[in-house]
Order: sequence, then structure tokens, then C-alpha cells
Amino acid sequence: MSKFSPKFNSIGIVGLGLLGGSLAIDVRKKHLTNCIVGFSRRISTLRKAKRNGLIDKYCRNFEEGIKEVDFLVITTPISVIREYFYLIRDNNPKVLVTDVASVKEKVVRDAEKILGRESNFISSHPIAGSEKRGLDASQEGLFENKTVVLTPSEFTRKDSLQKVREFWNCLGGKVVCCSPAEHDYMLALTSHLPHFVIFSLVNILNGKKEDRNFQDYIGSGFKDTTRIGKSDPDLWAEIFFLNKKNILCWLKKFEKSLSQLSEDLKKDDRNSMLVKLRKIQKIRKEIDE
Amino acid sequence: MSKFSPKFNSIGIVGLGLLGGSLAIDVRKKHLTNCIVGFSRRISTLRKAKRNGLIDKYCRNFEEGIKEVDFLVITTPISVIREYFYLIRDNNPKVLVTDVASVKEKVVRDAEKILGRESNFISSHPIAGSEKRGLDASQEGLFENKTVVLTPSEFTRKDSLQKVREFWNCLGGKVVCCSPAEHDYMLALTSHLPHFVIFSLVNILNGKKEDRNFQDYIGSGFKDTTRIGKSDPDLWAEIFFLNKKNILCWLKKFEKSLSQLSEDLKKDDRNSMLVKLRKIQKIRKEIDE
Repeated sequence: MSKFSPKFNSIGIVGLGLLGGSLAIDVRKKHLTNCIVGFSRRISTLRKAKRNGLIDKYCRNFEEGIKEVDFLVITTPISVIREYFYLIRDNNPKVLVTDVASVKEKVVRDAEKILGRESNFISSHPIAGSEKRGLDASQEGLFENKTVVLTPSEFTRKDSLQKVREFWNCLGGKVVCCSPAEHDYMLALTSHLPHFVIFSLVNILNGKKEDRNFQDYIGSGFKDTTRIGKSDPDLWAEIFFLNKKNILCWLKKFEKSLSQLSEDLKKDDRNSMLVKLRKIQKIRKEIDE
Repeated sequence: MSKFSPKFNSIGIVGLGLLGGSLAIDVRKKHLTNCIVGFSRRISTLRKAKRNGLIDKYCRNFEEGIKEVDFLVITTPISVIREYFYLIRDNNPKVLVTDVASVKEKVVRDAEKILGRESNFISSHPIAGSEKRGLDASQEGLFENKTVVLTPSEFTRKDSLQKVREFWNCLGGKVVCCSPAEHDYMLALTSHLPHFVIFSLVNILNGKKEDRNFQDYIGSGFKDTTRIGKSDPDLWAEIFFLNKKNILCWLKKFEKSLSQLSEDLKKDDRNSMLVKLRKIQKIRKEIDE
């Protein structure tokens, strides 16, 4: 835990799914605020979060609630973030705000347009999550040792950036900063393309269940490899379209890589394949180091 | 544990890596034999296995050792299995033998050619393993609840098949039977193609380390998805070439699936993509049920 513990009087969390719920758990555990205010469209979720002690209170009227908090974390689907920007602008334009979206260019552009350059918005992406969804999937320590990418702009205030950085540090996150464009380019490689590829892989099982009992032949390698194939379709369609340009760029490289390996196989070029596979094993092992 | 516990006087295990070592641990634990004999080319491995109590004795002279055992499990790389077939034919042609290779057509064909149709060879593939290798990676219970595919031929003796089936059942395996051709076709889908795809995916990181610190952007999703990218290059090159026909067949389907999803992205056809992703999520979730 960071030596400097930022204290907020009241932290608002919009959206109480896996990320919002896990945030609430750790914010309380690390004593980062005196009051956690939950915002959600679903009253059942708010009631459950209150009942389980994840939030101190909930507020169904965002326009009123936003006036009470001094730090707001938006964890909703990307498509509705801009609606909150309008409400923030009209009701508490100087409040410190962050989000947790997986695509940054769109969110930062919307923030600049709607909240303006003088706002206290700093976009965050904690690279922590799961194929699971919802408040019930919330877990303590979700952000522990996870990278959190912040994408400040040239207009970002230094003190606001510092506060958001320390907030994530307190939750165990390892903060790195880059531009929204760089974030989207790198995440297309490390997250969005892998999802795209795995969805395509799982898709070939379509219709197979009927003819053969392929499940008999599935081991833990397949299950681990395709675990992300269980991820939320709506979330991922949104990410794919918002980061289309970068994903298509990496997809080309993937197709090239796939065809190089296929060529070795078709041509029975065992040496060429071995050289590639050894290099690949080395690259992958280094990631764990 | 099966009610019927097959007792062998002496079980030989050829190759003391992850699979051979794990087998030894469970064979002892389930009291399936009075004596476990280890065979390996490396004396250091044999000594370590003996020292750690995994095997009762080791034998450096296979021609002599094979005469002592009444059940032999071959866990070596596929390329050397046929060498053992010759030694078995010449020294103990009626011994009960199985292997654990990931490709079956080649092994069964070699067995028929070398050992002949009157032999007691039944090919096994326990779908249990890991990207890890070697005796030190051995673990208790590796076969617990794992599918073990047996590929008997029309010449296989019923009593031999029954013994091998019960052997795997005793280790917790769930035995299914199919033809070598069917095994290779299904495993190409559930194991070989996924490895091929993941190797191709990890390959695009080649050279990236120098320009950007991409590791900062890697989360647990990427790590889980590409864990099999750490697998042994020699083993996998061997599998790819031995099961080339089936892998290329599934690879075509994968490329089609990939291009269908890419088309949706390029054409901004969100509905079409959503329909696919929802179906894919359903398929993948059903695998866990």
C-alpha cells in the first residue's frame, strides 16, 4: 500500500458489475473514503450491494448524487459513458472522474468534447477482469499486481493525475501512462486480437455437437485457451468496433504468421517450423519472467 | 477407484517425463503392481526416479528388462516408439503394451507392422498433460477425471483391452474408445489446431519487445490464452507433421471462421457479429457444463 493514502470524502461508483463491485470491496478495505455511493440503473443491484455492505448508500438520481461525491469511477459499458459526461458537466463539472473502459481514444475524445479541457477527467484502464460478469463475480484484490494504464492528455492537471495514480496504487495496481492511441494499439495486440482469434476458434465447434461427441476429446489446454470465449458478446462487439482500425492491423500480422506456419507444414519443412516454434516458446516464457 | 483392481506383477514405464513420472506416482498409490521398473535413456533421470521412490528399480538394458514386466507403458516421444516395438517383438512379443502418444494412426500402423496383429498392444491417449516437461513436473492425480482415449483395432484381444481400460480407470481416467483415424481427427480440432493458432498468435510478439514494452499491457486473459505457447517445440512439430492432414482440414475451417468475423468488422455489421458472438459464448459455456 502506498504511503500516501488519498482520502476522499465520498467516492461514487457508477455500474456495479464485476469491476464496480470489486472496486467497492477494495476501496472499503483500504479505507480510501468515508462513504461509497453506488449508482446503477437496476434498483435490485443497488439494494444487493447495500445489503452486502459493498456500498454505504445508493442514489437513483445521478444528477443529485454526483453533487455529493468528490471522486467518481465510471464502470459502465463504454456506450453509455458519454451520457454520464453530460450529466457531470451539468451538475458537478469539476469533480475528479475516471473510467475503466478497455478502449481509450473514443472515451478521451468524448470527455474532451463534453467535459472540456478544464475538467478533472483522467481515463484509466485496469487490466484486470474476467470472463465473468455482474456484482456476484466481484472479488477482493482484483487489482492487486495488475497493470493500470492511465491516458492523460496534455490538458490533464498534474494534481488530478497524481490523485488517480495514488488511488490505483492503493488498490495494489501498477500504474503506467501512455497516450490513448498507444493504449488502443497495444491492447489490440494483447487483449482484443486474442479475443477475436479465440471467438473464431470456438466458432468452428458450431454444429459439431450434433454429429460427434467432441466434448470427450477436450482437455484442460483447450479449456484454458478458450476461456475468454465465454466473455460477454455485447461488451466485445463494442470493443471490436471501437478499436477496429488497430485490431484489423494486428489481424493482418496474425494472418501472416498463421500462413507462415501453415507453409512450413504444407511443405514438410520441419526445420523451418522448429526454428519458429523454439523462438515462440522463448517469447512466451519470457512473458512469465 | 474401480472395484476390480488389476494386479500386475511388474509394470514397466519407458520414459520418465511428466507423463511417465505421474503414472509411476499413481500406479504406486493405487497399488496396481508389486514392482515399477523404469526405463530411460538418461541414467540421471533413472537415478532420481529411484531416489525419489517413484520406481522400484531401473533397467538400462531394455532387451533384458522387458522380459521381466507383464505390462509396459511407453511414454517417449512418438518418433522413438517404433524402436521399442522392435525390441518388444524380439524379446517379449506377447507382453501387454500401451503408449500415451497424442497422434494414433501412425503409432497403431507401426504396431501392426512391427508387433503384428497377434500382439497385445492397445494404444492409449490420456488427455492430460501440461506445457511443463520432465520428471520434476510429475504430479499425483494427473489422470483423475481426465479422458483417456483407447484406439483398439479389429484384431485387439478383448481381455487385453479390458486390462488396459481398467488400468486407466484405476488412475481415475474416463475411458472412451474410437478408431485411430477418429482420434486424430477430433484431437486435431480440440488440441492440435488450438496449439497451432496460439503459436501463430504468440509469434506476432516477435521483435516487439525491443520497440515497446508490451509486457505492461498483458493481463491474465492473454497469459491463460497463450499458456500452451510454452509447450515443447520438438513435441509439437512432431505432432503437427504426423497429423498434418487433419490439422490442415480444421485450419481451413478456422480461416473461414476468422474471415467471417473480420467481414462483420470491416462492414460494420454489428448485428451479424453479435449473433455470432452470442452463439460462440453459448457453445463455450456448454463445454464447462
